[in-house]
Amino acid sequence: MPSERELVKKITRKLYAKKNVLVKAGEDDAAIVEIGGKQLVFTTDIGFRATHFPKQMSFKDIGFKTVCVNLSDLAATGAKPECILASVGIESRMKAKEVQELARGMNKACKKYDASFVGGDTKKARELTVSICAIGEIVEGARALKRNNARVGDVVCVTGEIGNAVCGLKILLEKQTRKKNKRNKNKTRKTKHAKLVHAFTHPIPRVQEALVLSKQCKRCAAIDCSDGLLFTLKEIADANNVKITIHKNKIPVSKEARKYAGENRLNEKQLLDTGEDYELVVCMSEKDFGRVKKKIKLIEIGRVEKGRGVIVDGKQTQTKGYDAFLV
Amino acid sequence: MPSERELVKKITRKLYAKKNVLVKAGEDDAAIVEIGGKQLVFTTDIGFRATHFPKQMSFKDIGFKTVCVNLSDLAATGAKPECILASVGIESRMKAKEVQELARGMNKACKKYDASFVGGDTKKARELTVSICAIGEIVEGARALKRNNARVGDVVCVTGEIGNAVCGLKILLEKQTRKKNKRNKNKTRKTKHAKLVHAFTHPIPRVQEALVLSKQCKRCAAIDCSDGLLFTLKEIADANNVKITIHKNKIPVSKEARKYAGENRLNEKQLLDTGEDYELVVCMSEKDFGRVKKKIKLIEIGRVEKGRGVIVDGKQTQTKGYDAFLV
Repeated sequence: MPSERELVKKITRKLYAKKNVLVKAGEDDAAIVEIGGKQLVFTTDIGFRATHFPKQMSFKDIGFKTVCVNLSDLAATGAKPECILASVGIESRMKAKEVQELARGMNKACKKYDASFVGGDTKKARELTVSICAIGEIVEGARALKRNNARVGDVVCVTGEIGNAVCGLKILLEKQTRKKNKRNKNKTRKTKHAKLVHAFTHPIPRVQEALVLSKQCKRCAAIDCSDGLLFTLKEIADANNVKITIHKNKIPVSKEARKYAGENRLNEKQLLDTGEDYELVVCMSEKDFGRVKKKIKLIEIGRVEKGRGVIVDGKQTQTKGYDAFLV
Repeated sequence: MPSERELVKKITRKLYAKKNVLVKAGEDDAAIVEIGGKQLVFTTDIGFRATHFPKQMSFKDIGFKTVCVNLSDLAATGAKPECILASVGIESRMKAKEVQELARGMNKACKKYDASFVGGDTKKARELTVSICAIGEIVEGARALKRNNARVGDVVCVTGEIGNAVCGLKILLEKQTRKKNKRNKNKTRKTKHAKLVHAFTHPIPRVQEALVLSKQCKRCAAIDCSDGLLFTLKEIADANNVKITIHKNKIPVSKEARKYAGENRLNEKQLLDTGEDYELVVCMSEKDFGRVKKKIKLIEIGRVEKGRGVIVDGKQTQTKGYDAFLV
């Protein structure tokens, strides 16, 4: 099997698209289709028990997160959430109450980010499966954010801390492998690392930030960095034939993540490039940056320059990012 | 675990919906949301290898069918297909070529029924999983078809033959259990029953018929009978507090299906109520029926009357229909 990205590239080359498809499958985080004079944005994401939902995560949290992950892809396009649909595969050992908890988590995310929960499907499956489809809209007067919108001279920034989620995932997985008789100790550990675990279980889709960016910026490139920050920068660099130069000490890594990484042999590359953070990585002109950072939190981490690739503290960086086939 | 329908009922009661949601989750085959002055229709359906895709079905056929199943739900609402998204779980033993075949099948259905294939997601999974989301639109001058639109006096009709698909499924499952050294014999059998197998692998979503119905009928109730004809009639009867009376000899069952059922101990109830047929079951006034049947194929099978339940040849019928949790 080739990598996920190679395979997807091959498949998306030949897909049927009518004239009103403005951004096609595979071109960006989400597709854009013009319907009724509106630019509508469509995205989908599927997750499976064995690879995506640690056992320590509650059903409610799984529901909440799976919706947020999709809303994050809408945000990366600058879209306002409109509605979501959820298809769920249910293991035979699951109880009705657990399925309801899952739906409750999804609904909580829908309420929080103002997306109607309009449909779904449930079937029996070998492992818990959650497939979400999210639909958004580019509001009037706004411009869609596109990954190929970066230009030489742009400021490169992120909307929040990087690395918390991968620490949170590691804490959850560790807890999973421990023995039952150590339950109390685990509990202490969870409380101690509440912020990191929460970053993994409750990612914040940058919906509000996306609306400000799509309304305020003349031109703006954005992707969420859920596949890893360095990899995401590489994607932007490649899509625009430019070089992105960043400085490690500018990347906002929390003191909690730094401490946890130091104590648990998580190296810097793992911290910055494993993914699961749902911050937006954004490139825009200095002028736009100056204006927009007064309205939303934006942390400058580098610049777009002439050339190719991603340069971290002066060194070219190799990165493969998250590959769904290799986990 | 309660039945699928009971659980879904509980869940859908409390889902978050903005004011522009005209038909909510659980109310019909698909949700209707007003966006940009248009009525957009949303539906999703998920299938798993173990329960939905017989081993004898090719990846291309699986791709084709999964899209058609979703387009059929759009058709039941009278919507014109706009676009689809597909999330796929891939077994580790699958080859890249097989994933491409699956996508090719999906794309073939998209082309055939003029739906753009705008997005997707691929992940590793324990069993082949296909989740499709389809988006359609009620065209200008048309009215959405709703299941609660039936009235006493209406003609009850179907758009095509009932029972072919369940025979086709049985033929495929039989082939699966036979030994490899009988391959040639199997081949003969497939050719012999080509029509029945094709009905299962290549259901026809009644997209064209739906457009005529939504444009031409003043009031029209429709559901696709994929969960079984009798069960579908029961759903319409319950949603409208009416009785539906049908006559068995009016139901269009092909001579091939009758012959196969006779030779293979498939009783009449199994033939008519197992499901997998994607014909529309439609109720409309006699006047509309007279006009519309000149444009599309509609076979009258009964009438809507005062009362409750489904009456077949004078007898009240009990039916549970397809339940995803009990297969």
